[in-house]
Amino acid sequence: MSVSDALIARTILAGTVAESAPARDLPSAWERDAPEPAHAEQSLRNAAAATGEAAPIMPPLPPVEDGPLHRLGIGALQAAYAAGTTDPVAVVAALRARIARHPSGRDAVLAPVPGAEAAAEDSTRRIREGLARPLEGVPFGIKDIIDCAGAPVTCGSRLTGDRMAEADATVVARLRAAGAIPLAMLATTEFACGSAHNPRYGAVANPWNRARWTGGSSTGSGAALAARLLPLALGTDTGGSIRAPSAWCGITGLKPTRGLVPRTGVAPLSWTLDHVGPMARSAEDLARVMPWIAGPDGADPHAAGRYDAARARGLPGLRVGVPEGWFTEMQDAAVLAAWRQMLGVLERGGARLVPVDLGPVATAHQDGYTIVMAELASLQEPDLDRAAALDPGTRARMDQGRHFAATDYLRALRRRPLVLRQALDALSDVDVLVTPGLGGEAASLDTLTVEVDGESHPLQAVLPRNTMLFDYTGLPALMLPTGRGRTGMPVAAQVVGKPYDDALCLGVGAAFQRETGHHLSAPPEG
Amino acid sequence: MSVSDALIARTILAGTVAESAPARDLPSAWERDAPEPAHAEQSLRNAAAATGEAAPIMPPLPPVEDGPLHRLGIGALQAAYAAGTTDPVAVVAALRARIARHPSGRDAVLAPVPGAEAAAEDSTRRIREGLARPLEGVPFGIKDIIDCAGAPVTCGSRLTGDRMAEADATVVARLRAAGAIPLAMLATTEFACGSAHNPRYGAVANPWNRARWTGGSSTGSGAALAARLLPLALGTDTGGSIRAPSAWCGITGLKPTRGLVPRTGVAPLSWTLDHVGPMARSAEDLARVMPWIAGPDGADPHAAGRYDAARARGLPGLRVGVPEGWFTEMQDAAVLAAWRQMLGVLERGGARLVPVDLGPVATAHQDGYTIVMAELASLQEPDLDRAAALDPGTRARMDQGRHFAATDYLRALRRRPLVLRQALDALSDVDVLVTPGLGGEAASLDTLTVEVDGESHPLQAVLPRNTMLFDYTGLPALMLPTGRGRTGMPVAAQVVGKPYDDALCLGVGAAFQRETGHHLSAPPEG
Repeated sequence: MSVSDALIARTILAGTVAESAPARDLPSAWERDAPEPAHAEQSLRNAAAATGEAAPIMPPLPPVEDGPLHRLGIGALQAAYAAGTTDPVAVVAALRARIARHPSGRDAVLAPVPGAEAAAEDSTRRIREGLARPLEGVPFGIKDIIDCAGAPVTCGSRLTGDRMAEADATVVARLRAAGAIPLAMLATTEFACGSAHNPRYGAVANPWNRARWTGGSSTGSGAALAARLLPLALGTDTGGSIRAPSAWCGITGLKPTRGLVPRTGVAPLSWTLDHVGPMARSAEDLARVMPWIAGPDGADPHAAGRYDAARARGLPGLRVGVPEGWFTEMQDAAVLAAWRQMLGVLERGGARLVPVDLGPVATAHQDGYTIVMAELASLQEPDLDRAAALDPGTRARMDQGRHFAATDYLRALRRRPLVLRQALDALSDVDVLVTPGLGGEAASLDTLTVEVDGESHPLQAVLPRNTMLFDYTGLPALMLPTGRGRTGMPVAAQVVGKPYDDALCLGVGAAFQRETGHHLSAPPEG
Repeated sequence: MSVSDALIARTILAGTVAESAPARDLPSAWERDAPEPAHAEQSLRNAAAATGEAAPIMPPLPPVEDGPLHRLGIGALQAAYAAGTTDPVAVVAALRARIARHPSGRDAVLAPVPGAEAAAEDSTRRIREGLARPLEGVPFGIKDIIDCAGAPVTCGSRLTGDRMAEADATVVARLRAAGAIPLAMLATTEFACGSAHNPRYGAVANPWNRARWTGGSSTGSGAALAARLLPLALGTDTGGSIRAPSAWCGITGLKPTRGLVPRTGVAPLSWTLDHVGPMARSAEDLARVMPWIAGPDGADPHAAGRYDAARARGLPGLRVGVPEGWFTEMQDAAVLAAWRQMLGVLERGGARLVPVDLGPVATAHQDGYTIVMAELASLQEPDLDRAAALDPGTRARMDQGRHFAATDYLRALRRRPLVLRQALDALSDVDVLVTPGLGGEAASLDTLTVEVDGESHPLQAVLPRNTMLFDYTGLPALMLPTGRGRTGMPVAAQVVGKPYDDALCLGVGAAFQRETGHHLSAPPEG
């Protein structure tokens, strides 16, 4: 059995066929055993050990940058810390100040995480003493469905009251154990599912143009990164919720291979399709983070696999799949043009472009929604008598979910390994697939429609079109900016890999970003 | 974490929360990778190693018996082989002859398995050369939903044509590797689900009274054992399908802990609740078989745990739970009296009787059926256009399954770990639970009703009442004869254990059988 076959088998068993329905009226399966700090540190060691080296292969630190601290990405921060030109105390203070005065600090950021200043002092001391951990002093934000001990976690809902998280989600505990500093809780649509205009907190405006939406559901994560309030944020992706705000906010987000990042402590929307992943300002920054959050935690029954940094490779000889059909339809000409430019950059770097036919996608796309809506309806059932307080967007999807027959749900579930097998067959001759990102520029917050070649389409017809298939199949998918559209807003493309080829996707993204620098563009300062 | 907690956690994760839906339009997940013989032998070694000794703890061989070969159980056969008073060639010939002339040979037995005579010669040679494997020369029968290479496997359906199995199911491969000899394919209700009067093969009559039914769905297994056509048969149990025919045919059958015996190569009815297990004529004979068929096979994603023969123990000090309520309602006075006599035997042997309240069972019982019918409907969906050819009993359940909402199904699935937890809490002060078996004596084949204290009840109201909860929760459950009812037909009781306490259940059954001998009663020869 080849490594690839083993990975596929593991994906099918652990991540695609095997379903874990969380117990009803109990904390969900992946909330049940929040990891002890000691456990998180062990996981961290495991994750590091899994790369087969003392330390994972990480991008080299960039040159030390001048300029305001909020502009520094993760690598730039680490370079500055290493050079002693700044320290975590100064960075946390600068970001707190920026959050306080920036418009996105008022809609993207919901609450501060207590203890960040003390953690920054500890980090500063460790750096001075030569005891820096791998992500020492890197501040990060957390989507409001991911538990962070001592912080309010409300899932953007009026139903959750003033809930405070008692323990860290695995992903938060691992980042803390690696030295990163949780700084702020970030907005989401309700239960990572509701509509743009959240009834509890309002909408999150796009920092590039505050009349536009960020895309969801990781609204606050997208906006906070674009607004340079934070160098790192955690998001979740069930139909495209990391990648849509990454595309519309001009930042870089990875939906990892399904199961690679455990979901313990993350409120479920669909236990079958939910993914947790990092969002940052470059593929290299994501590659700095992934080794420390990936790998099973012994609590999430879906968690499987290891992040293999050695999968990254250069462009020469790389076979890049280029899809037609579904992925290039319902795409604005500006999105397609930027995507083709990206393909040209990759080709000039030595990659070979290979046409790939992924076959009919429409059924799989709909099957993904059947699973999500049925599981949402099941999860929300105990609160049916309070459904009037739900976001109308959540309620509409829940109502749809309640109308599915058991056989509709099971059909959607049971076709999934077959669709994965077909996708892997289609990708057998390539290393990665590069698709256009999101069909148009960010939707107007007013109309919630997307313009594609001058025609208005409802949000849901465009937004998840190119993303849901990779939640359904669990393949890793990176969204990254490719330039600007007709109205000057970011457009994006998506790099999709085979199971556990997350590092390869990030490597392709990093090679593109080194050539072009689209990821360096930031919204104008107000 | 105690051993018990670890077992519970493993049950919840691997067997109760984690669901594996087989891929649609592909061989089911557990049909996909039928084990290679080498794999089966490895599993056998693993199973042996798992007991922590060179050979598993097995009941001692009984004294060598005189009399016709067909009356010998597994232990008696092994003793006779060891003493050289007979050999597998003679036994296979004797059983073939008996099958040919016995009425149950015409309804319980569907087809011979080719190669049994050659296997018997090989077994005879091995015994002579001192190379006997653990189940050398033990003939066995196979329910018509379990694959046996080279034999027809039709699931009792008109939809399956003349399908021949290409490979052995794991459980068959393991028995073969242990030296046992597959001899005959045995009848089942359609897809282990349909009605008593199977449209393809007709009904299987009860050897105790051919105007009565065997109980289902392992109809042929129950009848063949009662008629002394075979000393061992494989059955499956999704709502009670091993235990109901065991009770009505006066034989002994074990539904193992969920996942203990892999289902690779077994046609699914409900991938969530299906169990495979052995049926024989005594608990000791089942204990001779279990070590060689238990343990994961690397193919069935639900398989988990090891058979631990060391869990068996004597009656002195054993705490036996005695339930009231659900389990003693809808039970004929004769069934209750025999059950109380069994409790008395256990108590006189040194066991302590402890009242146990399992709380309300009705919802869990119904939830079990919701899962089974929804999964049946999903599995049969590709054949919807041929549904007219289905057994009316299968079709009725499938139609019910098609009417469940996805949320009904998911609710039933998600309440399951909670019910398991409640059951384990209720059992925390006892070692095993002993319940009445089946509410009355075998149903008339004519009316398909069961008499309880002189009142007629529809089959389905009585048959699975005391069995389904243990399919739903996955706890091991042994059914064994306790005497005769009002009309002289067998009645039975059930010994239920905690997860992976299969050997303890068998030990309790064996202790009872040594004291009473009810299991030695056989139907009158015609």
